[in-house]
Amino acid sequence: MSKTGCDEGGGNISEEPLEKSPSGKAAATAATGPGWTKVSCPCCVSERIEPLVLVKLGEKVRPETKRWLIRLIGAPQKDGGAALLAHPGEDATGDIIMISASRCTLLQATEEFGLCKMYNTGEMETFSYDDRDNFRHSDNMEMFLTLAERQYIIKYELEGLRAQRDVRIPGLDDKYTLQHRDNIWQKLTAAGVIADTFPLHDKAKLKALSKSWYAGNQLSQPLDSVNAYFGSTVGFYFSFLDFYTWSLLPPALLGLSITFFSSEVQKEAVEAVVGSQAELHEADSGLTVSGHMIQAVFSMLWSTVFMELWKRRSSSTSYRWGTLHLADRFAEPRPAFNGHLGLNPITGRMEPQFPEWQRELRMALVSIPVVGLFLGMVILGMLCFYWAESQVMWLHEEWDSVVSQTLLYAPSVLHIVYTNVLATLYKTVAQSLTEFENHREESAFQNHLTAKVLVFTFFNYFAVLFHIAFVKQDVPLLRKRLASLLIVTQLVNQVTEVVIPFLVDHFVSAPHRRETEDDPEEDKFRNQITLPVFPGLFAEYIELLVQFGYLSLFSCVYPLTAVLLLINNVMEIRSDAYKICKLFRKPFCAPAANMGVWQIAFEILSFVAVVSNCWLLTLSPQLQRMRHEGQMSSDEIMLIAVMAEHVLIIVKVIVAALIPDEPDWVRKKLAHMQYKSMQALRQQNLRSEES
Amino acid sequence: MSKTGCDEGGGNISEEPLEKSPSGKAAATAATGPGWTKVSCPCCVSERIEPLVLVKLGEKVRPETKRWLIRLIGAPQKDGGAALLAHPGEDATGDIIMISASRCTLLQATEEFGLCKMYNTGEMETFSYDDRDNFRHSDNMEMFLTLAERQYIIKYELEGLRAQRDVRIPGLDDKYTLQHRDNIWQKLTAAGVIADTFPLHDKAKLKALSKSWYAGNQLSQPLDSVNAYFGSTVGFYFSFLDFYTWSLLPPALLGLSITFFSSEVQKEAVEAVVGSQAELHEADSGLTVSGHMIQAVFSMLWSTVFMELWKRRSSSTSYRWGTLHLADRFAEPRPAFNGHLGLNPITGRMEPQFPEWQRELRMALVSIPVVGLFLGMVILGMLCFYWAESQVMWLHEEWDSVVSQTLLYAPSVLHIVYTNVLATLYKTVAQSLTEFENHREESAFQNHLTAKVLVFTFFNYFAVLFHIAFVKQDVPLLRKRLASLLIVTQLVNQVTEVVIPFLVDHFVSAPHRRETEDDPEEDKFRNQITLPVFPGLFAEYIELLVQFGYLSLFSCVYPLTAVLLLINNVMEIRSDAYKICKLFRKPFCAPAANMGVWQIAFEILSFVAVVSNCWLLTLSPQLQRMRHEGQMSSDEIMLIAVMAEHVLIIVKVIVAALIPDEPDWVRKKLAHMQYKSMQALRQQNLRSEES
Repeated sequence: MSKTGCDEGGGNISEEPLEKSPSGKAAATAATGPGWTKVSCPCCVSERIEPLVLVKLGEKVRPETKRWLIRLIGAPQKDGGAALLAHPGEDATGDIIMISASRCTLLQATEEFGLCKMYNTGEMETFSYDDRDNFRHSDNMEMFLTLAERQYIIKYELEGLRAQRDVRIPGLDDKYTLQHRDNIWQKLTAAGVIADTFPLHDKAKLKALSKSWYAGNQLSQPLDSVNAYFGSTVGFYFSFLDFYTWSLLPPALLGLSITFFSSEVQKEAVEAVVGSQAELHEADSGLTVSGHMIQAVFSMLWSTVFMELWKRRSSSTSYRWGTLHLADRFAEPRPAFNGHLGLNPITGRMEPQFPEWQRELRMALVSIPVVGLFLGMVILGMLCFYWAESQVMWLHEEWDSVVSQTLLYAPSVLHIVYTNVLATLYKTVAQSLTEFENHREESAFQNHLTAKVLVFTFFNYFAVLFHIAFVKQDVPLLRKRLASLLIVTQLVNQVTEVVIPFLVDHFVSAPHRRETEDDPEEDKFRNQITLPVFPGLFAEYIELLVQFGYLSLFSCVYPLTAVLLLINNVMEIRSDAYKICKLFRKPFCAPAANMGVWQIAFEILSFVAVVSNCWLLTLSPQLQRMRHEGQMSSDEIMLIAVMAEHVLIIVKVIVAALIPDEPDWVRKKLAHMQYKSMQALRQQNLRSEES
Repeated sequence: MSKTGCDEGGGNISEEPLEKSPSGKAAATAATGPGWTKVSCPCCVSERIEPLVLVKLGEKVRPETKRWLIRLIGAPQKDGGAALLAHPGEDATGDIIMISASRCTLLQATEEFGLCKMYNTGEMETFSYDDRDNFRHSDNMEMFLTLAERQYIIKYELEGLRAQRDVRIPGLDDKYTLQHRDNIWQKLTAAGVIADTFPLHDKAKLKALSKSWYAGNQLSQPLDSVNAYFGSTVGFYFSFLDFYTWSLLPPALLGLSITFFSSEVQKEAVEAVVGSQAELHEADSGLTVSGHMIQAVFSMLWSTVFMELWKRRSSSTSYRWGTLHLADRFAEPRPAFNGHLGLNPITGRMEPQFPEWQRELRMALVSIPVVGLFLGMVILGMLCFYWAESQVMWLHEEWDSVVSQTLLYAPSVLHIVYTNVLATLYKTVAQSLTEFENHREESAFQNHLTAKVLVFTFFNYFAVLFHIAFVKQDVPLLRKRLASLLIVTQLVNQVTEVVIPFLVDHFVSAPHRRETEDDPEEDKFRNQITLPVFPGLFAEYIELLVQFGYLSLFSCVYPLTAVLLLINNVMEIRSDAYKICKLFRKPFCAPAANMGVWQIAFEILSFVAVVSNCWLLTLSPQLQRMRHEGQMSSDEIMLIAVMAEHVLIIVKVIVAALIPDEPDWVRKKLAHMQYKSMQALRQQNLRSEES
């Protein structure tokens, strides 16, 4: 980070080692809010300081440690500090520290992230600290940066703290002595000094947000406000949920009309839910065949167009939110990244280096085999389950006793236990594998971790359905399973995700919180500690992905899928919004330019859908009957399926190629930015030579 | 183009309109070579001027027109000239003008193209005119720019000449009066003033090049020298030919060993060439099946790895040749581009604008249907041919006379005539369609034109083979066809491409040329007019593509394909090199960063190969026999083929994703450049504000 301007003002403390001035009279310049550490440059003085992040200390932290920590947080960056503002809370011995950030620190981090902000011409431009005065609102941080951005910058600065030399931390054992370049935040967390760090809710903004988001009957979400309050990762999730939900309208309408016009599909749909297995496939088979086929072809094309349009919307959203040009490749590596200290060939800075080939080797030789092993274990578990079930059935027929009847449940129970143990184990393993891969950027780390968990979870969900569809080839059973998954699972999800946390919050946690309403301002924030940690968006995304899987992979089996999903998602928008606003602590959100690895997952799924649908159609009872009656040989059916598959995949690829991933205006803006930076580069060498 | 420094020196002629100073004493500054126009800035004076490009005038061009043209070419760009150096040849009334370029013009065009050159740090950097002194050899144009680049720049400047106001051309009819912003070069060509413009050979360099290229028995080509002499388009072709030829070694070795170890394959190979149809498929079928299969699977994987490695080589070559960062998007549009004059949203310059959606509409509604129509006519022609052939056969059986016997040849002859007429017609149509699409950049125009001709030519070549393979399902016939195509067609190609032009050159054209050996220097260049125009690389590339098609689509049918291709290509390298050096005029070559649309064509082909090979294997006599003997149902065979196809495509996609398109070091250099331009952009706004 280029430290210009800001640090010079605090020159008077630069020679004074941090650990030798316990009285805290270091920074001699302007005072700010009462109780806050001093800022070191005049431009950062503001009358009101808004607490942004709360650090919860461990229970046995001694006052000198807390004082040292506050001083460290407030010290300028060239002295190894975080250049933030810290407040000790109610009193110096309390177990919280509140943190805010000064203008210069925020602006410099904005440049480092490569965020785009509104220039005074009205265009979005990559923010430059030196040119800060030409960006709109750059004097007012609350308008210039969103709340989520300011809070993330504080987390970034705190977690990036590194010891500039070997330092003993006051009040701690010698074993926690910091070595040169040790990550201070990690060490303090390991030492139990820091129990928790989380961003604070802003009650007024939260109230306004929830009112416009889920309190009324509004159909559209205030996505820009969501982005501003929660950050772009959350913003993108809700933007995608919104787009996806309304994109379900066409397949839902088609599904409804197919069900309405085809009596056979109606029968099947009812059977699937009620469970009666009356085989009445005689009447008007012609229409039904075409109904299923229309549904299949439509859903394949729909999924392609949907993904392409989403990419366009995603890129224009990202332009609007200023995250289209993120530069995390050029920023400092993430704290847990390790490697030999060396010269970064791209930025020319000294920082840990880790060769790419070594990472690839680790992925190829460790990660992929381990993930494969777990996937194999899922299949093994499924096969064992089917084998045990048939064994138990046979035993029951042989013996027919109470013991054998209870034994009938054993395989299912064992399988559920096995699956859950495996999933829990896998999550830990995926985390360590991704740590071991040693990614440089936080975004790469998250993407690789998500991809690992994603593959496994998806496999877990769909292995049984694929087994029923393509090994057992039992379409009615598949339809039954799908209907039950769609109706029951979604209901269960809503209950476990929202109703239970709501009840817990309302009856268990809230009474504790209410007692402290008269406490001083600072201690009110303490209440947010009692809220559970936000579990992340993985569960939300995987739910959408699995839905999308039901819809695109098996939609031709159960045309009402889209209708059920549409109803579910309209509720989901509200429940997810309520959940993130009320039931959890506010999460930290890194700026993001898109949905990351989820985008790829949805795209892969829409390819698998073509294959799946084409083969499912060959299993449709109508075609099977034609085969039995000798109207078509199984050869011919297969040939048609193969042809259809190839044609549809080609159509899909062409459609995807024809719809540009970016709207024309975004493409032009990007080309313009590129042109400008090319021009700038041409003149830079000359200037650096002149000066 | 930013005109700084150079034009200021010629200020004294800027007020003097071109058409009013016939005596030619305009530029008052430094003199250069005898007979050349004057340069207007001192830095451009050089002792020796090398004629680079020759303009052949029409026969009836009057001296005043020639003088006007020479003055136009020599005038500074702000006066609407080309800022080049012109020489009237032997005398002022002769029909040639020789053109060279001054240093400033060359350097400014280098910046405009976005070429990268060696900086004084030893790194390649995008050239900047203002920073010219820090680039190595920027004082010596013959070392700084390659011959091909200097010549292309002259063509670019000449063809970019536009009238600054309405002007009557001296010595021409009033109907050729130039309107404001008319393209002068186009108008002069239409008026018959300019008959031809072509770059001149440099005899000494050419001799050195041919010695190191094809004269000896060397195995490697001097690709950097080829690039320097002929330009990067030709350079990439030979680089690809080189890489492709040596990549044929593994499949050739495999093909040889399969043929060696499997007696049945040997028999088939011999049969295909000799033509006897002895069906002896009894012995050791096990090994043969696996031989064909090994060949098929290997060639699919080979084609993927080959393309990925080529991309890596291509990007490092392009980095070395300085064309990785071409900026033709930001340069002036190509001369034939038309549109309403407007502000370019990217560069902010006034230039013709043509909306993207209108181009897309034209492509969708005109180009694609027309191309489809022609493809349909190819198929129609083929079907008619088969139908006519069967009719003629039947007639011959019925009548059995001399008339019916000669009639037997009629369908073939008619089909050949039809195909040729169609191909010629199509080329004209493709040209007009691409003109109609109105592409802004020359590279886009070339790519779209090539793509159109490519699709048709490829279709023309392979329709018959696909028909034999998948409609007739006649593997022995396919094998015979392939063998004859590989051996006969390649031989014919070599003869028509090289031997005939060589003979024509040696016995028809050369005697004319030899008479004039004692003529003055300038008129020697005139001899190059007698050489035929270089026909472009389309025929060369399509030959490689068709080869690659034989190899990857049908290799499992005829394992010796790769061996034959390897032998052919080793000769091809030499014959192509000889051809381009000796038998044709030197072509103009725009700088190119890669093979353009050919890259995509090869990649698509390698996908089609997977599908084709999998289905060809199901037709293998062994599997067919197993089916007849009931060992496998045709269902099972098909299922296996489908599975194999899907697995192989997935493997292909994964392999392609795992091998990065750029070598690590190129990736790092590019990231470094991007980082630098980001940094430069950050500081530019600030500076523009200060100044």
